[in-house]
Amino acid sequence: MRPPQPPAVLPRGFRFAATACGLKKTGALDLGMLVSDEPASAAAVFTTNLVQAAPVVLCREHLRKAKGRLRAVVANSGNANCSVGPAGMTAARATAVRAAAELGIAPQEVFVCSTGVIGVPLPAERILAAMPRLARAGRGSTRSFLEFAHAILTTDTRPKWAAATCRVGGKTVRIAGCTKGAGMIHPRMATMLAFLATDAAIAPGLLQRTLADVSKRTFNTITVDGDSSTNDTVIILANGASGTRKIARDSAAHRGFAAALEKVCHSLALQIVADGEGAQRVIEIEVRGAGTEAAARRIAETIATSPLVKTAFAGGDPNWGRILAAAGRAGVKFDPDETYIEMAKIPVYRRGRALPFDENAAHRRMLADTVPIVVDLKEGYAKARVWTCDFTAEYVRINASYRT
Amino acid sequence: MRPPQPPAVLPRGFRFAATACGLKKTGALDLGMLVSDEPASAAAVFTTNLVQAAPVVLCREHLRKAKGRLRAVVANSGNANCSVGPAGMTAARATAVRAAAELGIAPQEVFVCSTGVIGVPLPAERILAAMPRLARAGRGSTRSFLEFAHAILTTDTRPKWAAATCRVGGKTVRIAGCTKGAGMIHPRMATMLAFLATDAAIAPGLLQRTLADVSKRTFNTITVDGDSSTNDTVIILANGASGTRKIARDSAAHRGFAAALEKVCHSLALQIVADGEGAQRVIEIEVRGAGTEAAARRIAETIATSPLVKTAFAGGDPNWGRILAAAGRAGVKFDPDETYIEMAKIPVYRRGRALPFDENAAHRRMLADTVPIVVDLKEGYAKARVWTCDFTAEYVRINASYRT
Repeated sequence: MRPPQPPAVLPRGFRFAATACGLKKTGALDLGMLVSDEPASAAAVFTTNLVQAAPVVLCREHLRKAKGRLRAVVANSGNANCSVGPAGMTAARATAVRAAAELGIAPQEVFVCSTGVIGVPLPAERILAAMPRLARAGRGSTRSFLEFAHAILTTDTRPKWAAATCRVGGKTVRIAGCTKGAGMIHPRMATMLAFLATDAAIAPGLLQRTLADVSKRTFNTITVDGDSSTNDTVIILANGASGTRKIARDSAAHRGFAAALEKVCHSLALQIVADGEGAQRVIEIEVRGAGTEAAARRIAETIATSPLVKTAFAGGDPNWGRILAAAGRAGVKFDPDETYIEMAKIPVYRRGRALPFDENAAHRRMLADTVPIVVDLKEGYAKARVWTCDFTAEYVRINASYRT
Repeated sequence: MRPPQPPAVLPRGFRFAATACGLKKTGALDLGMLVSDEPASAAAVFTTNLVQAAPVVLCREHLRKAKGRLRAVVANSGNANCSVGPAGMTAARATAVRAAAELGIAPQEVFVCSTGVIGVPLPAERILAAMPRLARAGRGSTRSFLEFAHAILTTDTRPKWAAATCRVGGKTVRIAGCTKGAGMIHPRMATMLAFLATDAAIAPGLLQRTLADVSKRTFNTITVDGDSSTNDTVIILANGASGTRKIARDSAAHRGFAAALEKVCHSLALQIVADGEGAQRVIEIEVRGAGTEAAARRIAETIATSPLVKTAFAGGDPNWGRILAAAGRAGVKFDPDETYIEMAKIPVYRRGRALPFDENAAHRRMLADTVPIVVDLKEGYAKARVWTCDFTAEYVRINASYRT
């Protein structure tokens, strides 16, 4: 999967900045800031894990207190600020207060996000000391945006960004976003962060509904290893700087905006899967012909998290038996004797038995960057798609190595 | 984990036999028979996978038709007789009919089990041709029992057996069993088979309840990779040849019998985990202090199937963050700030933060054959234990290699 071109035109009225404040031992960028010139409509979705990092708790609090009108995001990599006792909230609050002071805004207008090692106290003084230069450095340039995208990475092998435009009342609205995927640090776990900026004019409530809906079909349809993190966060700021009229619910403009947002989020989500730890390829699993979308999703997710399915894909093995068996244990009723399975566009199973196919040709097709799988239950009309990556020895190497 | 000594004394009134009928290309033993001299009370538990192999369907049918009184098990390795269309039931029925004819019993008194490759028609004629010599070869000797235990293996690296005794009315009752674990063959999937024989006198209904209850705490508390098979089967035959009185429900004799059966099944289950594909060690996960046993079990199973937890154990990494995060996504409410975690008997997490511990000493302890983990939710009094193995690069190698 080729990383997309850097966005040529960014949403208006946003500045980005990044610096190395010393959280990463390598001296790489580890602190980023995203600021809207004016108060922006804000929306966010967070991890559903019961264990939630301090910055997640603070983001929820600020979103509520500021009634969905915020202006900035401060994000650090190298430390997740999670499971460190009351010091976690103290560090997250101090970060918001200092950023707000430097930017001349209220602390509750600042989102704070962290990713990296958990269980180790965040050396907040390094973040606080870097804040004045970070606040001064903000620019609306592509270069600044890309630096911000780099500052949130942990063990990602490459930065991830995407952009799209839509039209509202004859004018252009821009959306740009960046994300980081599964990274493991002492005592490591996966964290997904995504930040989206748009110059659309849209009320916080409608923005929240739109983001939640789009996330369900994009960020919530990918899986690398089935584990979910304590810090997962997706944030969008919409500052209206495009000068267009406000987007009304269920209008043509809203549909256009939602489609553009989905395009950006879909691209970001697939970039995460493609850069999954040790991944060689993306597997697109479509379950169709189900009675309900929930049933289709449950089967697709069971297939996508099956170690036996994912290891077969590592070897390019057209192993339909494992796909059928994973579907069969998903807890959803269907008739295996009516089910149809296709791998890399080759029909392999129909009406309770294997179809003859050229194994070598299938093997070659399964070595592609993206391999589509279709499971048709022939029961109804609902469907769901889920994306995952293959499960390689490199994944085990990355995650089993005793930390040094 | 050391394999147990072969049982010196087997249950009375049973004969065992094994042969190589040509299903395994290597010429290894691939067909086994277990026969009771007299009709025996029979009970069985089967896979909950929606996709069920033909022999599983036939076993259910025979158990019902014979009203829980059966006499024989015929089991083959090298072919799962699954997902091959109507030919599957034809082959399974033919096997039962031929075995019954050779043994002079009714076809419905025969259980038929298969494990191995799925999607490939079973060459039943090889099984049928071998049946006369198999039926003649049956002996009650330890050697015959061990040969039977070998005949059901697929990619297991060693045979698995266990035995125990209990007292009923002053006399000895014997229980012996063997099992096979996760084996992967084209288009591979894991199958677990277990066969138990006892000379206890017990009614089929009580035997079924006892087996189901014991299985819940033994075979259903282990996981190698979270995938469940189309062929999983546990069968017990109780022929009463010990000459003791019939075991009455909830009597002291029943408690003694259930305890002995649990001892055998627990040993067999742990042997499966220890021989899990690529496994270096067994991880015993105990979740205690839960509000309900179901909640404790759900958290324990989520931890036991987390790739991040299992890869950390491959490296001997005392990574409590992954255990806490897996517990947090289990879908059960608890307070992470009250939770206590212990790894290899070392307290590592309490009241929302890490406890200081000697990392190198912990690492060394985590390289043991069996590593105990305790998660105490401090909410109630219910608990559950689950056993799993570590997740190694060797597991991926075994399951990703393109079949030849």
